[in-house]
Amino acid sequence: MMYLVAYDIELDKNRNKIAKLLLKIGLERVQYSVFIGPLTEWEYGEIQEKIEILIKEDPTYSVLFLPLHNDMIQSIVEVSSNKLDWEYLKGEKTIMIL
Amino acid sequence: MMYLVAYDIELDKNRNKIAKLLLKIGLERVQYSVFIGPLTEWEYGEIQEKIEILIKEDPTYSVLFLPLHNDMIQSIVEVSSNKLDWEYLKGEKTIMIL
Repeated sequence: MMYLVAYDIELDKNRNKIAKLLLKIGLERVQYSVFIGPLTEWEYGEIQEKIEILIKEDPTYSVLFLPLHNDMIQSIVEVSSNKLDWEYLKGEKTIMIL
Repeated sequence: MMYLVAYDIELDKNRNKIAKLLLKIGLERVQYSVFIGPLTEWEYGEIQEKIEILIKEDPTYSVLFLPLHNDMIQSIVEVSSNKLDWEYLKGEKTIMIL
């Protein structure tokens, strides 16, 4: 299943750790604090658990996890100076064009 | 239709203008750079056009517009120090609890 993960994390140290975690698990960074990519059910659970542990001492934080159905990904509109490679993000091809 | 709008805008002036625009049109700020709320088809077109005009001179920018189906909103997971009022965001009640 594809997911969008967006965060607002006050402490630099924890924000950086979580960014690394999201990239390591295979998500792509589509904005500074927004990531999109496929996660298995197991990965989805694991990542939530790891993030909860990492940020539980932070004064303020918010991490949103949105499942993205395929028809929704088709409807995403991007106004951007650097277009994303949506075919890659949708898993329709395996090499990303940057 | 409910939408999620997420932005990455380099210039403070334009970022602030777009935040004001999104709030004025009725979206709620759920993270520093993420907004959710209902938009009519007309509002959705208008807001895209206004944002495109505002940021076309920016060196780098990205604004994502995601339509959110109701079943998707039910599946959003939030790991947060300050829980959002999802019933309000889904339009199930008209007063937001902060």
